Amino acid sequence: MISVLEAKQHIIKHVKSPRVEEKLLSDALGFVLAETLLAEIDTPPFDNSAMDGYAFSYSKWDKKSALTVIGEVQAGSENSLKTGANEAIRIFTGAPVPPEVDTVIMLEKVERNADKITLLDENLKQGGNIRPKGSQTKKGDVALQKGQLVTPAGISYLAGMGYSKVKVFTKPKVSIIITGKELVKAGETLETGKIYESNGIGLTAGLRQLGIEPVSVAQVDDVSESIENAIESQLNSDIIILTGGVSVGNYDLVPAALEKCGVEKIFHKVKQKPGKPFYFGTTSNALIFALPGNPAAVMTCFYEYVVTAIDALMQKTHLKTLMLSLENDFNKKPGLTNFLKGKTTENGVKILDSQLSYMLNSFAIADCLITLDEDKTEYKKGDLVVVLMIA
Amino acid sequence: MISVLEAKQHIIKHVKSPRVEEKLLSDALGFVLAETLLAEIDTPPFDNSAMDGYAFSYSKWDKKSALTVIGEVQAGSENSLKTGANEAIRIFTGAPVPPEVDTVIMLEKVERNADKITLLDENLKQGGNIRPKGSQTKKGDVALQKGQLVTPAGISYLAGMGYSKVKVFTKPKVSIIITGKELVKAGETLETGKIYESNGIGLTAGLRQLGIEPVSVAQVDDVSESIENAIESQLNSDIIILTGGVSVGNYDLVPAALEKCGVEKIFHKVKQKPGKPFYFGTTSNALIFALPGNPAAVMTCFYEYVVTAIDALMQKTHLKTLMLSLENDFNKKPGLTNFLKGKTTENGVKILDSQLSYMLNSFAIADCLITLDEDKTEYKKGDLVVVLMIA
Repeated sequence: MISVLEAKQHIIKHVKSPRVEEKLLSDALGFVLAETLLAEIDTPPFDNSAMDGYAFSYSKWDKKSALTVIGEVQAGSENSLKTGANEAIRIFTGAPVPPEVDTVIMLEKVERNADKITLLDENLKQGGNIRPKGSQTKKGDVALQKGQLVTPAGISYLAGMGYSKVKVFTKPKVSIIITGKELVKAGETLETGKIYESNGIGLTAGLRQLGIEPVSVAQVDDVSESIENAIESQLNSDIIILTGGVSVGNYDLVPAALEKCGVEKIFHKVKQKPGKPFYFGTTSNALIFALPGNPAAVMTCFYEYVVTAIDALMQKTHLKTLMLSLENDFNKKPGLTNFLKGKTTENGVKILDSQLSYMLNSFAIADCLITLDEDKTEYKKGDLVVVLMIA
Repeated sequence: MISVLEAKQHIIKHVKSPRVEEKLLSDALGFVLAETLLAEIDTPPFDNSAMDGYAFSYSKWDKKSALTVIGEVQAGSENSLKTGANEAIRIFTGAPVPPEVDTVIMLEKVERNADKITLLDENLKQGGNIRPKGSQTKKGDVALQKGQLVTPAGISYLAGMGYSKVKVFTKPKVSIIITGKELVKAGETLETGKIYESNGIGLTAGLRQLGIEPVSVAQVDDVSESIENAIESQLNSDIIILTGGVSVGNYDLVPAALEKCGVEKIFHKVKQKPGKPFYFGTTSNALIFALPGNPAAVMTCFYEYVVTAIDALMQKTHLKTLMLSLENDFNKKPGLTNFLKGKTTENGVKILDSQLSYMLNSFAIADCLITLDEDKTEYKKGDLVVVLMIA
């Protein structure tokens, strides 16, 4: 049986090359740039006023007289009026400064009488309150580097340079296949032996948390042919997640069905709790994650392994990993890495109760998964642990 | 002029009561529960096997003989076979344990010859490997508390109890109105004096980051009547965000237009940089955020103020606030709170270059906004600062 670290290394090694897609800028939020973007224009595209006030030529002013206002220029307008000695033009924030003008004085720092303004700003310097053309970016400069996450401010920034499309690393196509004849839908009668299906809806929500809508969510019976057909029909996806049917029982038909569908097994079973029977395989274009059916094992393997693969495909770290201080002692058996449901606090992280793989009551209120090492058996309050933030 | 803290207090005071909405469980991801949910059934709904193996009655076993296998029970099936002395039933993970059976031995811990199994588990105890009915939740127990964020695992947990709908605090209806005659759309010719519109697309992306799609994004000219009409048409929204036209210039028509539309001004101008001319007002059902037009001021006021209101309406903290250690020295003038674009590092947080309000090049690569206090002028490397995580 391999370790958690080895399992993650195998997965990373088998992740296919990220694919690139051109998206409308407005749809690129949360994606990572697959190209370095150069500024297509100078920004600002022209010298403009940082303030509402009066624009004038500092060198043509005699430094004592009031200035005569000879016109005005609004944002969005143009004014090619030329100012002479001791002349000024009323100007608004963002308006292009007229030719030969090099300084703006704030509206609040003048006293105006009819068409005359007296300047009251003792700190005024030549060039004051003007945003020079190209002072944010010059045409041809690097605007954003390949690998940059596209944020709301990034979208605003690129829009301001006239960008309307960008190339990003695309989302993977993900299919979900739930196996198990014991599963019924909410609203149906719960006969003895049956339970409500929850893994499909949980995994769908997990993918949506990453901004991904699964291309297919299927539920199939514990019958080899049904499982094989379900797998076959999804082999053009980038990722297939299966749940149930991967342990040693006679009705655990998933590994055999995957083999029949041409999936190459990379590993089966990992030294971990929950989720020991976890299986991972590949085809030429798909990664197959066959997870045990217990709901806590499903969600744990999703966060620890499926998200790792999605991160690599999208070149993005979706969930933050932190080192935090444990708030409680914990003893475990050696031999398996434990992933425990935790809740961060002001001072660190608390291990929650109800850690069994068939229970979700603690997972539902957890905001993180805590990793406890395979061979370490005693954890004390204050020990630093690796924490994966999931909410 | 009021302080940042006073501005936030005013906003919180004027936020309307959160509204409640019933949503399909599968659509409730990321919302906060507006009701305490009780378990509608025992989970597990029946005693079931935690393992693939053999089920038998511990007390009817003579503790030495091999057991005779008299039948099997799969997950999703039922078997009312009764076991006698030294008899066992083949059982699969999740299958209901037959009557009178109280113990399961793992498949790997028996030796089977024809219909006889020899038990090899020295640690086996009565009751072993059985998940008792109701051991996760008993019918009527609190399943999740009002105020709980609905996570993927929470959705899976509730689905497992048969829930298909839940009541949550609903998203606000948000309208965006961009003012300014200098603004043109990407792809259009950029005549002198014009700039590409970026605030509408930036704010839309900011809302989408919170899972909110604006109900309307309008762009209007600097004409009183146009601005008034745009405001009037959106007064049934919960939040209206305007950009531009709120400072002192003759063409800064937004405050007057808001007054004409019956909006009560709560404050205008805040001791902050960027975004000093920020205006906030209310009607009986809407909150109005009129932001200055500079793009960095827009996005800063969005994160610092609009998100605060959305958090209160949805009873959720969308963005994390941390205390981090500064990586560089910084001097500022007294009198204004500074919100600076920052980037977290392994050891703390770095203040980025290009902090002017018309520049977004640093905002586009920032993952946080750093608050520097109004009256403090000197910050040194190692000083703790408040950091709002925005990416």
